Amino acid sequence: MPAPLFNPLVANLSAPPIPLVQAWTDAYSGAQGPLIDLSQAVPGYPPHRDMLKWLGETASSAAYAGYGPIEGEAVLREAYAEHVAGLYGAPVAADNVHITAGCNQAFIAAIMAVAGAGDTVLMTNPFYFNHQSTLAMLGIKSRTVECSAAKSFVPEVQAIAGALTGDIRALALVTPNNPTGAIYPPQMLEAVYDLCRANGTWLILDETYRDFLPSGSEAPHGLLRLPGWHDTLIQLYSFSKSFCIPGHRLGAIVGGPKVVENVAKVMDNLQICAPRAPQAAVARAIAPLASWREANRAEIAGRANALHDVMRRLPEWRLEAIGAYFAFIRHPFDGVSSVEVAERLAKKAGVLALPGAFFGEGQDRSLRFAFANADAATIRLLEGRLGRLSSSA
Amino acid sequence: MPAPLFNPLVANLSAPPIPLVQAWTDAYSGAQGPLIDLSQAVPGYPPHRDMLKWLGETASSAAYAGYGPIEGEAVLREAYAEHVAGLYGAPVAADNVHITAGCNQAFIAAIMAVAGAGDTVLMTNPFYFNHQSTLAMLGIKSRTVECSAAKSFVPEVQAIAGALTGDIRALALVTPNNPTGAIYPPQMLEAVYDLCRANGTWLILDETYRDFLPSGSEAPHGLLRLPGWHDTLIQLYSFSKSFCIPGHRLGAIVGGPKVVENVAKVMDNLQICAPRAPQAAVARAIAPLASWREANRAEIAGRANALHDVMRRLPEWRLEAIGAYFAFIRHPFDGVSSVEVAERLAKKAGVLALPGAFFGEGQDRSLRFAFANADAATIRLLEGRLGRLSSSA
Repeated sequence: MPAPLFNPLVANLSAPPIPLVQAWTDAYSGAQGPLIDLSQAVPGYPPHRDMLKWLGETASSAAYAGYGPIEGEAVLREAYAEHVAGLYGAPVAADNVHITAGCNQAFIAAIMAVAGAGDTVLMTNPFYFNHQSTLAMLGIKSRTVECSAAKSFVPEVQAIAGALTGDIRALALVTPNNPTGAIYPPQMLEAVYDLCRANGTWLILDETYRDFLPSGSEAPHGLLRLPGWHDTLIQLYSFSKSFCIPGHRLGAIVGGPKVVENVAKVMDNLQICAPRAPQAAVARAIAPLASWREANRAEIAGRANALHDVMRRLPEWRLEAIGAYFAFIRHPFDGVSSVEVAERLAKKAGVLALPGAFFGEGQDRSLRFAFANADAATIRLLEGRLGRLSSSA
Repeated sequence: MPAPLFNPLVANLSAPPIPLVQAWTDAYSGAQGPLIDLSQAVPGYPPHRDMLKWLGETASSAAYAGYGPIEGEAVLREAYAEHVAGLYGAPVAADNVHITAGCNQAFIAAIMAVAGAGDTVLMTNPFYFNHQSTLAMLGIKSRTVECSAAKSFVPEVQAIAGALTGDIRALALVTPNNPTGAIYPPQMLEAVYDLCRANGTWLILDETYRDFLPSGSEAPHGLLRLPGWHDTLIQLYSFSKSFCIPGHRLGAIVGGPKVVENVAKVMDNLQICAPRAPQAAVARAIAPLASWREANRAEIAGRANALHDVMRRLPEWRLEAIGAYFAFIRHPFDGVSSVEVAERLAKKAGVLALPGAFFGEGQDRSLRFAFANADAATIRLLEGRLGRLSSSA
C-alpha cells in the first residue's frame, strides 16, 4: 500500500515560527520577573472600548450573518478609500479597495493574482518570513536584494535595478519594515517604482505598520499620486495593529480595478469574503478613532525612545535599525546562532524575541524585537535582563 | 514599457459565478411577485438568537481581540471533536481538528497540503465550481468521474477504480452533493475509501451539508471508525449553513495529526488563524443548539417534499436529483444553454437558480436549485413561475 503524499513544498516548510518560539517560555522560571513578549507584533494595549462595542453590535446583528460581497463591505471599502485618499493626497476610490482577512491574506491574494508556480518574485534580505514561506509553498521562486546595517537596512536603488531582470513578476517590499523597522524614504520608493514600471514588474508594498511612523502628518510616499499607478502598484495594509484587533482578521489591498478584479477571483476560492461584522465595525471606527490612533503613535514613539536609551547603556548589544514597530538588534555572542541566543533570552532572561535567522540567510547575528508590544517601563527592564545575559555568557 | 502581467491561471478564471447571476435580478420587474433566490446556499431563516447573542459577547470581548492559535481555539476544537466523535461513533479528538475560515478555505488548505502545481486531483462531473476553480488557479490538474442522472448522480465505484491512476494525489467528493443533492451511501464511500487507500490517494470528503441529511440519527458513513483513517481521509465541514452564519466564516478540517500539522503551515500563510470571536461563540453553541438544528433539518425535509410535489405537477421540468440542500433539475428547453435558461428564469420569472454549465461540461440541460433557502410556501410558487416560463417559450 503506497503511503499517501503531502505536497513537498508544504511538508518542507518549517513549522510556523511564532508558536515555536512561544513554546520556549514554558521553560522560563520567572526568576527575572514577568515574561516580556516581544515576539509577535501585538500592540500591548487593548482595543478602544468603542471598537469593542461596535464589534459586539455588528456581530450580534442578523444583518451580517449572511454572505457579503467578495471584495468587501461597501461601507468599509468607502471609508478606507477615503482614509487612504486623505492620507496620501491621492485619488483612491472604493473600487480600488479589496478587503481581506488580514495582511498575510492580502499578500497571498495579491501574489496569486500576479504570479504562479515557476514565476519569480524579488524580496529583500532580511524579509518577512511569511512572505518567503507563502512564495515557497506556491512554488514561486524568490530572489533577494541584500539590505545592510550600514545603510540602515534600506535597500539600495542600484541593487534593485541590478536585480530587476525581465523574469521578475513582482517586487515585494515592506515599509516600515518587518523585521528591521527601516522606513523607506519617499524618494527611494519613487525611484524603485519607476524601475518596476519600466520593467513591467508589480511593486507590492506592504504598509502594515505605517500608522506607527514617527511623523504621522505626512504621506508615507507619493506613489498613489503618480499617473498610471494602477498598472504598477499594489498596496497592502492591516487593520490588526492600528485597531488592536488581529483576532478579527482584517486587511486591505489597494490597487487598480484589474487588480481588484483578479484578487476577487482568488479570494472567492480562498474564503469567499472576509468576515463581515468586523468590516462594518471598522468602517464605523476609522474616522472617530483617528485621535486614539494618533495617541498610540505618540505612545509607541515614546517606547522607541525608551529602547534607544536602554540600548545606549548596553554596548555589547547593538541597535542596528529601529522604526515604526520593530528594532533589529545585533547580539554579542560570537559563533552562537540567533536561534540559540533567542532561546537563552527566553528561558534565562524571560524576554521573547525572534531570531534573525528566521528572516533570511546571513541574519544570524541579529534578533527582532517587536518593541511596540511593551510599554516604556517594561522596555527599561531590558537593560538588566539583556545586560545580565551578556555578562553571564 | 512592458505591461505588467497577471497570473494567467487567475486571469483566465471566469468571474465568480454567484455575483454574475445575482446581477440578473436587476432586470426582473417583480411582475410575478417577490424574487425567489435559490442561487447561493443560504438558509432562509435567521441564526438562533442565542447564537447572535454569543457572537456579540465574544466579539465585544478584549479576550478575543488578539491573535489566536493557528489550528483554532482550543474550546472549538474540543467541542467540534466531541460532536464529530458522537455523530460518527468514532475516535476523533481535538488534535484531529483544524478550524478554517469557511469550507472553501478548508478545501484549499487541505488541497495545498497534499498537492501542488502539476499534480492531479480527481473530482466528479458535475463538481462544485469552487473546487474546480481552486485547483485551476493553483495549477493543479483535475480529472473527473462522470455522474449520471440514471444513477442519481452517485459516482460508480467501478468508474472511480478506473480513474484512480497512480498520479492521483487526492479524490475530492462532496456528500450530500453540491450541486446535485446526491447522498452517497456509506457502503459506496467505504469502497471508495478502500480504493484510495490502496492507491495512496487522499480521500477529501466535503460534508458541508450533512446536517441537512433527511435521517439525522445515523452516522453519514463509517470511515472515521476505520483503522488508519489518518492516512487516507480528510473531512471538511462548514459551520455556515448549520448555524446560519456564513458571514462569520467558519469551517473545519478533520484529519490525522500530520494532516493538521501541514494544514497549519498553509493556514499560517493564508491568514494566520480563523476569526476568533465566532470560534468561541460556536464552541458554546454546538451542544445547546442541537435541537434547533434538528428542527431545521425537519423544516428542510419539508421543503424537499414541497419541491417534490411541485415538480410532479411540472412534467416539462424533471427533478433529476434531490438531497439535503440542493436539487438538480432538467429544464425543458431544447438547444438553449443553461445560462440562457437561468437568465430567463431570473429576469422573467423572478427565480434565481444556477446554470448547470457552471458545474461542468455536459451539464447544460440542468439547473441547480438551492431549495433549502426558501420555505415551503415559497417553493409552491415555483409551480406557476416555472410553468408559465415553459409554456410561454
